[in-house]
Amino acid sequence: MSSQLHHFTAQVYYEDTDHSGVVYHANYLKYFERAREDIIGIEELSRLWHEEGVGFAVYRADLSFHEGAVFGDTLDIRTRWDKESLYRVIWHQEVWRPGGEKPAVTGEIHLVCLDRNKKLRPLPEISLD
Amino acid sequence: MSSQLHHFTAQVYYEDTDHSGVVYHANYLKYFERAREDIIGIEELSRLWHEEGVGFAVYRADLSFHEGAVFGDTLDIRTRWDKESLYRVIWHQEVWRPGGEKPAVTGEIHLVCLDRNKKLRPLPEISLD
Amino acid sequence: MSSQLHHFTAQVYYEDTDHSGVVYHANYLKYFERAREDIIGIEELSRLWHEEGVGFAVYRADLSFHEGAVFGDTLDIRTRWDKESLYRVIWHQEVWRPGGEKPAVTGEIHLVCLDRNKKLRPLPEISLD
Amino acid sequence: MSSQLHHFTAQVYYEDTDHSGVVYHANYLKYFERAREDIIGIEELSRLWHEEGVGFAVYRADLSFHEGAVFGDTLDIRTRWDKESLYRVIWHQEVWRPGGEKPAVTGEIHLVCLDRNKKLRPLPEISLD
Repeated sequence: MSSQLHHFTAQVYYEDTDHSGVVYHANYLKYFERAREDIIGIEELSRLWHEEGVGFAVYRADLSFHEGAVFGDTLDIRTRWDKESLYRVIWHQEVWRPGGEKPAVTGEIHLVCLDRNKKLRPLPEISLD
Repeated sequence: MSSQLHHFTAQVYYEDTDHSGVVYHANYLKYFERAREDIIGIEELSRLWHEEGVGFAVYRADLSFHEGAVFGDTLDIRTRWDKESLYRVIWHQEVWRPGGEKPAVTGEIHLVCLDRNKKLRPLPEISLD
Repeated sequence: MSSQLHHFTAQVYYEDTDHSGVVYHANYLKYFERAREDIIGIEELSRLWHEEGVGFAVYRADLSFHEGAVFGDTLDIRTRWDKESLYRVIWHQEVWRPGGEKPAVTGEIHLVCLDRNKKLRPLPEISLD
Repeated sequence: MSSQLHHFTAQVYYEDTDHSGVVYHANYLKYFERAREDIIGIEELSRLWHEEGVGFAVYRADLSFHEGAVFGDTLDIRTRWDKESLYRVIWHQEVWRPGGEKPAVTGEIHLVCLDRNKKLRPLPEISLD
C-alpha cells in the first residue's frame, strides 16, 4: 500500500544545468534525494547519523528522462513510497516542470539502511507510514 | 553605499558534503549564487538569458573558510551588495550556521554581465538598489 | 552483438564523496559518462556539438549499487555497448574498485541523439562498432 | 622559495559546464584540488586520512576568472606552492586552455591540516619541497 503523494519544490539554478542547456542528468538524483530527506525529516536523519551511526543508502535507481528542465524552472518533485520490508523502502518519484502535462523525469529508488561499517540494518522507526 | 542585508536559507544535503564530514569547499560558491539569484529574481534572470542573451558571470571570488557546515544544518546566507559601476556588482556574502556567533564562511564575489558572445555588457536595469 | 570491453580509469577525489564516507551515488553517472565520452571521442563530441548542434542525451539509466567506492580508489570503469537501432545506443557499464571480485556499481544507460531543438536525430556515423 | 612548476591535465566534461556554455565557476576549485592531490599523492592522502585521521582543509581561496573553458577542452592546471609555515601551504594555481596565451583562471589557495576533531595540526612530512 503506497503512501500519500508528497510535493517538494526544487529550483533549477546555474549549478544544475550543463552546456546543452538543460539540467545535467545526474542532478535529478539530487532532487529526488532532497525530497526523500524532506519526507523522513532532516533533523531525524541528522540525529540517526550523528548519534546512532545509521544512514540510508541507495542500492538501486531506475530513471527515465522524457524532457529536460531548464534554468529558472521551479520543479515539483512528487513522491510516493512503499515500505517493502523491514529492510527496504521503494520510492516512486517524478519531476514535474511548471505547467507540464506529464512528468519530465521519473525514478524508482530503492533504499536500505546501513550502519557505519556498511552493514545492513532494519529501517528505523520513522514516520514512513 | 551598501544594500540592505538579505537573508537566504540553504539546507545542507548529502550531496553537499564530502568524506571529511563537512560541506565540500566549492559548494559554498553554489549557496552564494543561489542567494544572489534570489535577490536578482530567477524569473528576471531567466528572461534576461532566454530573451536577451545576457547572463551574469563571476570574475573574482575571494573566500575565507572558518568552520565547516555539516549535514542537517539549515544555513543562513547573508548578503549585501554594491553596484560599483555600470558594469560591476560586488557582493559581500556570509554563511551562518544555526546558532553561530560568527560566519562559517565569508566571500566577496565580483559579477559582470556578458552577452552570448562573452562580451561585456552594462548591467541591466534590475532592482539592485 | 556487443562491442569489445572498454576500460576507463576514474580517480576518486574529495569532490566525489559524501559525509557517509563513500562516493555520492549520483556521481557514478558522471564516471559512466566520462567513459562513454572517451569511447566516442571528446574531439568528435565537441565537433558534433559546436559545428552540427548535435548532442547525446540519456533517456534511461538503471543503476545497481553493491559497494561504495572511497577516497583514493582508482576505479576501473568497464563498458560494452550495443547499437540497438539507428537512434539508440545501450551501454552496459560497471565500476570496479581496486582488487574487487565483482563490480561495485552496474548501470545500463540508454542514449539518443538530439539536435539543438531537442528533436530526435539518427545517431551520427561514429566509430561505435 | 617557491616549488617547481607542476602540470596536471583536466578534461572538461558535460558535468563541468553550465547552461551559459562554459565551465561552472565553482568547478575550477575541483580542478585545483585534483592537481594538489596529484602533487601530494593520492595514496599518501588516503593513508593520512584513513590511518592517521588527518586531512587537508582549504581556509582561503582567491580566484580570478578571465575566460571560460568549454566542453572538449583539455586543460593544463599549473601549480606552484610555498610552505609558508609549519601549518600552512599556499598554492598558486592556474588554468590554461589549449593554445591559450594567458591563464583562463588563476587561484591562490591556502591549506591547513586538521585532525578528525577539526583541530589544527602541523603539516605532515610530505614531499612538498
